[in-house]
Amino acid sequence: MRAFSERLAYLRESPTRKIDALRERLRREGRDVIVLSAGQPSIPPPVEVRRRLAELLQEESMELYGYTPSQGIYELREAVSEDLKRLGGLDVPPDQITITAGGQAAMFSTLATIIEPGDEVVLMDPTYFGYKPLVEYFGARIVRHRTYLENDYQPDVERLKEQITPKTKALILVSPDNPTGRLLSPEAAKALADLAVDHDIWLVTDEAYKTMIYEGEHVYLYKLAPEHVISINTFSKDPAIPGWRLGYVYGPKDAVSKIKLVNEEMVYCPPSFAQRMVAIYLKSDVRFRYIKEFVAAYRARRDIVIDALRRYVPDGRFKVPQGSMFVFVDLSKYIADGEAFAQKLLEEYSVALVPGSYFSDVYKAAVRISFVAERPERLVEGVRRIGEALAK
Amino acid sequence: MRAFSERLAYLRESPTRKIDALRERLRREGRDVIVLSAGQPSIPPPVEVRRRLAELLQEESMELYGYTPSQGIYELREAVSEDLKRLGGLDVPPDQITITAGGQAAMFSTLATIIEPGDEVVLMDPTYFGYKPLVEYFGARIVRHRTYLENDYQPDVERLKEQITPKTKALILVSPDNPTGRLLSPEAAKALADLAVDHDIWLVTDEAYKTMIYEGEHVYLYKLAPEHVISINTFSKDPAIPGWRLGYVYGPKDAVSKIKLVNEEMVYCPPSFAQRMVAIYLKSDVRFRYIKEFVAAYRARRDIVIDALRRYVPDGRFKVPQGSMFVFVDLSKYIADGEAFAQKLLEEYSVALVPGSYFSDVYKAAVRISFVAERPERLVEGVRRIGEALAK
Repeated sequence: MRAFSERLAYLRESPTRKIDALRERLRREGRDVIVLSAGQPSIPPPVEVRRRLAELLQEESMELYGYTPSQGIYELREAVSEDLKRLGGLDVPPDQITITAGGQAAMFSTLATIIEPGDEVVLMDPTYFGYKPLVEYFGARIVRHRTYLENDYQPDVERLKEQITPKTKALILVSPDNPTGRLLSPEAAKALADLAVDHDIWLVTDEAYKTMIYEGEHVYLYKLAPEHVISINTFSKDPAIPGWRLGYVYGPKDAVSKIKLVNEEMVYCPPSFAQRMVAIYLKSDVRFRYIKEFVAAYRARRDIVIDALRRYVPDGRFKVPQGSMFVFVDLSKYIADGEAFAQKLLEEYSVALVPGSYFSDVYKAAVRISFVAERPERLVEGVRRIGEALAK
Repeated sequence: MRAFSERLAYLRESPTRKIDALRERLRREGRDVIVLSAGQPSIPPPVEVRRRLAELLQEESMELYGYTPSQGIYELREAVSEDLKRLGGLDVPPDQITITAGGQAAMFSTLATIIEPGDEVVLMDPTYFGYKPLVEYFGARIVRHRTYLENDYQPDVERLKEQITPKTKALILVSPDNPTGRLLSPEAAKALADLAVDHDIWLVTDEAYKTMIYEGEHVYLYKLAPEHVISINTFSKDPAIPGWRLGYVYGPKDAVSKIKLVNEEMVYCPPSFAQRMVAIYLKSDVRFRYIKEFVAAYRARRDIVIDALRRYVPDGRFKVPQGSMFVFVDLSKYIADGEAFAQKLLEEYSVALVPGSYFSDVYKAAVRISFVAERPERLVEGVRRIGEALAK
């Protein structure tokens, strides 16, 4: 009998994809939509690196086109190892790194590796919407740990301890956070690491935004619990190649070698062209200049959005993001249903954003606003229209 | 408790990866290995296309770098739709096509979509080694259908009927075949299509080599049973970008939309740079000239290998491949264990090939020889050494 796997029921189209589809329809209707929904940088990769790639494309050889090892080319894994040392003082040798076809493949392969049906996995509330469907697809039950603006969206480790059971397999934590922009505090990080070791659970740390920091410092959980931390990373944000699909996982050697195997079965090897690109980038002088440039640009835009929110949405409650691309605004003084509001905002005011319900079971009156995907004047105009829509 | 998923036991490192690792060690020892193992073209993509890409890399925009729709950019799906029409007279609209991160992702996502634990899946014997671990990982039992050189490695549909049970979910067939190079005959194709419809099972057809044909014509099973055929395709062979990871699936709309969803969860979107490249290629005048050129080049190399086999390995039995990159040689007149022979050949004669046991439960005295990855004089020398090793 032709039929489809029942497990597919857990996989739903990404909510931002739904917004993209609606945006696309409005665009075809000639509407100019202000995009505050996209988690995609607007500053392209460094021109020096692009020029070097253009040269390589002229060479008459298969070298640029051939398969690479499943874990990625050694040159890139070495460059990542050195990068982690320079960024955070980490000591992660190349054989504890596997390159993946983007952060999504890093997430999929990591969860495929560690989850057994019947496990429990702790997710923050709010957290990045990409984890829920995967955790459920692999057969685990989700336990939500609510975090609060009043507590800077830090996990409450005493409360967390009560949520851990013998079935708990992993705790997933995004820092710098999507959607709240908070950095994990050193105290919370230490308590989380101890918790993971004491209960012998995996701490899956999503460090997608680790070089997008405007104030404060990123804490590398791996330094605190190297045997218990698996780290998910992406080159989508830095150096801004989301479509090229490249990321990596680092962690204990046995975990990484299994994650590599899953990636081999999923995609055989990560895209070679992107691997060459990022190896050139990470090893070049451009690396830290480029980070400095985009951080300055995105910090300025963050400040513009924060100012506009204070002006046009005075009763919105939010944390000023220390990192990432987003501000998460609680609009419960204005509305109850962020999803209905987001739909109205898009259809009537041509502004796209992501409702809080995509990240949370409780923050349904919140919305996530991206401050990286549009130019400053359009950011202000977008927030102004949010205020206008809320006033109605 | 930190632990790993038990299902991972079904995933084994690709056998050609093991050979690659050994080759790499020998290379470091300064040994010049003749590579008859690799299923990787040696003629790079058309220079016109590479030049156009190099130009695009100079543009100051995020367009080349951003996420694409999960199913791939419309321009590419349209180009694939037109290509299928020109190649085979197929009528497959863009919404029945989903672009994937290579043929491997096409395989993984298709099997994830159709297999339920407890299903049975019929594989030819011999067949491409990539299917077995995935079928088992997703929880199905493999039923082997042996094919014979005497019968041109065609499936025997009467015998197949006896192997179909109520649990049979799918039959997977590679044509042009890896490892035997046979094209499915029109009669066998018709009988297979009828079988799939009569028993309402999926016919998964792997068409990786559909433009690598030296004699005869490729039969598109989709034309015979459009509601029952899911087709796996890759751009790794044509236009020779195996490392860039791009492929596609076409089939019934409901199946393709579910396969798309799995790909979205696995990798979010296929690599955008490769998508742009192939869209340019498929729509360009270069397309059919390029196919003509590589087919002529690889046909000449095939003939060189066939001649060398007849001269140096006179008791080897094989089918002259009508397509693909390989000749599958039964060496049972010389040896019993192809795996031990392959190992000895690599270590003592510096020639890499793939033993038959990787493709088969029965053809253990066979080896697969690739005729595309080396220059003609090295192909002859490689076969000469095979003869020498067999003579000992």
